[in-house]
Order: sequence, then C-alpha cells, then structure tokens
Amino acid sequence: MEFHLHRPDEKIRPALQEKIDNLTKPKGSLGRLEDLALQIGWIQQTLTPSLHKPHNILFAADHGIVEEGVSTSPKEITWQQVLHFLKGGAGVNFLCHQHHFQLDIVDAGVDYDFDHHLALWDQKVAKGTHNYRYESAMSDEQMESCLQRGAEVVSHVHNQGCNVVSFGEMGIGNTSSSSIWMHYFAQIPLQQCVGAGSGLDHAGIQHKYQVLQEAIDHYSGDKTPYDIIRYFGGFEMVMAIGGMLRAAELGMIILIDGFIMTNCILAASQLYPEVLCYAIYGHSGDEVGHQLVLKHLKAQPLLQLNLRLGEGTGAICAYPILESAVHMIHEMDSFQKAEVTKYFDV
Amino acid sequence: MEFHLHRPDEKIRPALQEKIDNLTKPKGSLGRLEDLALQIGWIQQTLTPSLHKPHNILFAADHGIVEEGVSTSPKEITWQQVLHFLKGGAGVNFLCHQHHFQLDIVDAGVDYDFDHHLALWDQKVAKGTHNYRYESAMSDEQMESCLQRGAEVVSHVHNQGCNVVSFGEMGIGNTSSSSIWMHYFAQIPLQQCVGAGSGLDHAGIQHKYQVLQEAIDHYSGDKTPYDIIRYFGGFEMVMAIGGMLRAAELGMIILIDGFIMTNCILAASQLYPEVLCYAIYGHSGDEVGHQLVLKHLKAQPLLQLNLRLGEGTGAICAYPILESAVHMIHEMDSFQKAEVTKYFDV
Repeated sequence: MEFHLHRPDEKIRPALQEKIDNLTKPKGSLGRLEDLALQIGWIQQTLTPSLHKPHNILFAADHGIVEEGVSTSPKEITWQQVLHFLKGGAGVNFLCHQHHFQLDIVDAGVDYDFDHHLALWDQKVAKGTHNYRYESAMSDEQMESCLQRGAEVVSHVHNQGCNVVSFGEMGIGNTSSSSIWMHYFAQIPLQQCVGAGSGLDHAGIQHKYQVLQEAIDHYSGDKTPYDIIRYFGGFEMVMAIGGMLRAAELGMIILIDGFIMTNCILAASQLYPEVLCYAIYGHSGDEVGHQLVLKHLKAQPLLQLNLRLGEGTGAICAYPILESAVHMIHEMDSFQKAEVTKYFDV
Repeated sequence: MEFHLHRPDEKIRPALQEKIDNLTKPKGSLGRLEDLALQIGWIQQTLTPSLHKPHNILFAADHGIVEEGVSTSPKEITWQQVLHFLKGGAGVNFLCHQHHFQLDIVDAGVDYDFDHHLALWDQKVAKGTHNYRYESAMSDEQMESCLQRGAEVVSHVHNQGCNVVSFGEMGIGNTSSSSIWMHYFAQIPLQQCVGAGSGLDHAGIQHKYQVLQEAIDHYSGDKTPYDIIRYFGGFEMVMAIGGMLRAAELGMIILIDGFIMTNCILAASQLYPEVLCYAIYGHSGDEVGHQLVLKHLKAQPLLQLNLRLGEGTGAICAYPILESAVHMIHEMDSFQKAEVTKYFDV
C-alpha cells in the first residue's frame, strides 16, 4: 500500500517563532509549550493552530509468540481487557473521559469471538499472528490489510473533525515484537531491547531474550523494513503504522504513547521518514529500551510518570500540555497589546 | 505567629494502597498517578479523595535589592505585570482558564499606587522591601503581618470550598532572596544557588553572586530560620509561607511551582517541618539551583517542561495529573468488579 507523505513547509517557521517570541514573557520562558506551539503551527501550516476532537484509537490483537512463554500475563487478558475497555472501567477510560478523547476500540486480530452487538470496531485480520519463532507472524496480504484498515480508521475519525490522534494497543506479547523491531531499526543490541513487559522477573526476561534471539537467528527474510515489520509484527501494531501514516498524510498531529507505539512510529519511519514530523511524544516509560529508542529518534517526551500500562494512557495524559501550547498562542497578549515594557532579554 | 500543623495519620495508608493495587492494571503500572492518589488520600484521610475549586494565589511585591543591579528586568515590570494579570493576557491567565483555577492576585508590597477599583487583593505591607545589602528587608512587624495576611487569604479561599491551592509570585528580584534562603536552609554553597533569573548573562550572574555574598557577609543576625526569612525575604514570599502553613493546617493540598516557591516551602519547613507532607511539586524548572533544592527536599516534580516564568504556571500545568490520580481511584474498576484475570505480577 502506498502513502503520500511530505514534510510540512518550513516557510511558516520564522513567522510562528516571531509570534511566540512577542508574547508577554521572557523569550523562551514557557519552554516546551513554545516548542509545541511551533511544531503544531508548522504541522498545521498556520499562525493560529488549533486542536479538534482528539481520538485515541486502541488496536487489540493476539500474538503467536506468547506460546513461547514470553509474557507473565496469559493470552486471555487481551480479550478480557477489550471487554473491560468497552465497559468503561479501565485505565484508558478515565483518561479519555477526563481529557475529552473519543475512544475507538478496534479488534485487529484478537483470538476470541466477540459478540457482534458490542461497540467494537471489527477489523479482525485473523485470530492472532503466527508464532514468529518458527514462521512469519503474518502473510503479505495480512500486512497490507492491516496497513489499509489502520489507515481507514484514521480517515474515518478525520472525517469526523479530528485533527489530533493518539494510538493505544492491547496485545499480550507485543513488547516482544517491539523489541525486535527496535533491534533492527535502531541498531541496538537485542539484549538492551528486551524488558519486563507486564512484569517478568530477571529469569523471565532472560528467557524472553533467548526466544527472541532464536527467532532472529531463524529468520531468513530479505531484511527490508517491510519484511521485518511483517515477519515479527503484531496486527495491532501494523494497523497503528497504517494509522500513523494516514494521519501524517492528512496533516494530523500524532500523539505517541509508550514503548510499543514508539516502536511503531520507528517502524513507520523506516517506510516513510516524513511521518516523524507529525509526532509528539507523550510519555517516557519504565520499560527497558524505551529510553534508548526515544534517544535514537531524538524524541523528548513531555511526561515521565513511570506509567507502563499502554492503552494510550501516556499519550492522553500529555494532551493538556498540547492544549496549553495552543491556548498560549491564542490567549496571551503581545508586548504591544499589553503595554508591558519588553523584558530586556527578549 | 503560631501555626498548628500535624502530619496526616499514617493509619490510612495500607487501606489506600490496597485499594490502588486492586484496580485493573498490573501493580504499579500507573506509576506517579498511584503515588499521587496515595498522597492525596493520606492528606485528606479518605479512601475517596477529591479535588475542589483549585486556586492560584499570586502574591506580588518589590525588592530593595534590585537597586544593586541583580536583575535584567526593571522594577516597573512588577506593577505592569500585576495590571497585565488583572487584564487577563499573561501566562498565568490562560493556564488558570484552561484548568479552571480561580486566580487571586494579591498586592503584598508592590512599589506602585494601584487604582482601588481594580480586582486586586490589597495586602500591601509597604512599597517594597529594604535593600538587604545594607539592612534587613523587613521589620519583625512586617514579617508577622505577611505571615498573617498570607494565612488569611488561604483561609478565605478554603471557606469558599477550595482544598487544593498553588502559589504564584511576581516580584522582580525575588530569585535573589530565594538563592540566599536556599544557601542557608539547604546548606548549599551560594555560588550554586545563584542563577540567571529572568535572563542574566554570565557577567550578570557573577555580579548578582557578589552582591548576595556581600549581603550575607554584612548580615549579623541570629541566623535562626525566622531571622533569615525576615532579613532576606520578600513580602510576596513570606505571605506565601504564611499561606502554605495555613493550607497545611487546614489539610489542603499545596501545589508547588518553580524555583521561588520551592524555596518558600523549604523556608516554611524550617519553621514547621510537617508542611512538607502536604506539598506536591509541579515542575522542575531551568533556573540553576532548582534541581539542587528539589534534591535536598527529596522532591520529584511531576513536570519538566523548561518553564521559567513563575506566576504559578508550572504548578497549574501539573494539575491535570493530580486530577488523573483522583479519577483513577474513583473510575477504574477493581479486578473483582471487572471480571478480569488478575495479572500474575500483582
């Protein structure tokens, strides 16, 4: 599937910077809010940026690799948590409610037959991926289908007026796929990419590392980004990539959550590097390797709250800071208007 | 003036921790939100904590030390900014508006005659402090008056139903007082306590350091916390101390802003150490020395957004994270209710 991304035009930057510098404060004294205002204005190509109808799109799927004992949590947690999200009592629910996010829950490939009456977006590609310890997680057709369906979900929310989107995930086993992608795409030794996931102890992490190393050793594909994504991916993760690429095509702001989603945008950037211009990183989490992949991406997340829940929670928590940046540019007076002596250091 | 503070009772902690651990997430996976929920429940002595009617009380005053050239900004900025806050176009205004804070602007001792019709809380002690390069910044009576007036303002907002309060400040020259307090109360060499304020260059910082060192050398008081606060203080800062102590007396949550307010609670803790139990640190700023004083207090601010504006902005930006902690405890389901298999690592 083809996407058509471009970098936002640089021409607007000086005017945006001047507008921000002329607000009644010492130059730079609103720190990251000023950086965000600049980035959002640049993405939107306007001196009057705005945020509309934020969505958190939560893709859920199962992973064949879980058969190898790479997670403390049983596979059944995936479908149970999907039902839990639908009922409204999970971590992501209270945060969506607090920050006025619409929550879209997408079955990308959960190994469970959900009741068709549920408010669940049915995009099931298959009932979980194959076990990439022995074979490719998905076929070419499944990969294409994931990219396309992820893109379609984003087009749909964009049509509803959304211009800022975060992505969440639920899929027991998906830190394993993330670690392998990170290893290949950020050229970081696998050992440093493998962490505790939802709560492995030291021996568990060591076992997970060995399984993943064996999977890599067994892999005999062409090592193109496309093939690595396909071979080691999860359906929910590839749909997120499709969603991110479409969001960038449409000039939307992409709010990045934790370890999994950081590796999804890393993978997306292997296909279309321009996608990174549209990304704002919400949260730097506890998972070993997250710091490393963020550093590789030169990303500075807005929050460090030691969250390790996924679901989009870290991204959503950061949203009020984006809103502050936009409010700043609209609601603060300029020095001229305020009749305040311009600070000497401006 | 006497305050009557006590540590919140520890007995409630195990029940609070159990409630938090039994929410549908891997144990600890909501990180700082869980810590905050515990602290807020502990302060409020309840398993159902809540936040009501947040206020940002912004004290403004002038400083005699400015005559010594310790700031890049002219003294007139203080009164101009007060008018600017009242008009609504400053940094603090958009953040109060965004996060539904009531903004109370208090003239603690600005060197300007404000129009009495303004919505300004007149608590002016004098038109600025004396220059502590040569003499005590304020008299005993002025110090007492500041503590009392700060406390009264907090009592007033508490009576309006407020149970969470942040403090802001506006006072050209007040990083100098902060640096000296920090030097004495955190036992940190003065050189490490002195920074750029609103924008000094290297030579300016060196000059500021020399002026403050001379002030310390000239000081011949009894070196009790009370005397150091009085001698080197600012009216707005001592009012904030009175406000913080009253807030703790009343069991309110105290949200700490940047460098100045961190040094105010440090100073307050020299008088009544229990005040620290009630403090939540909003933001770790750029000012040299802020990191050091936070470390001394074993404080871990919620945000690091490179803000250096003061006014309460860093504290207010962090408020949604407190709200998230409270929403978490009320809105997330327990494992029993959700019928989700308890994660193995809980």
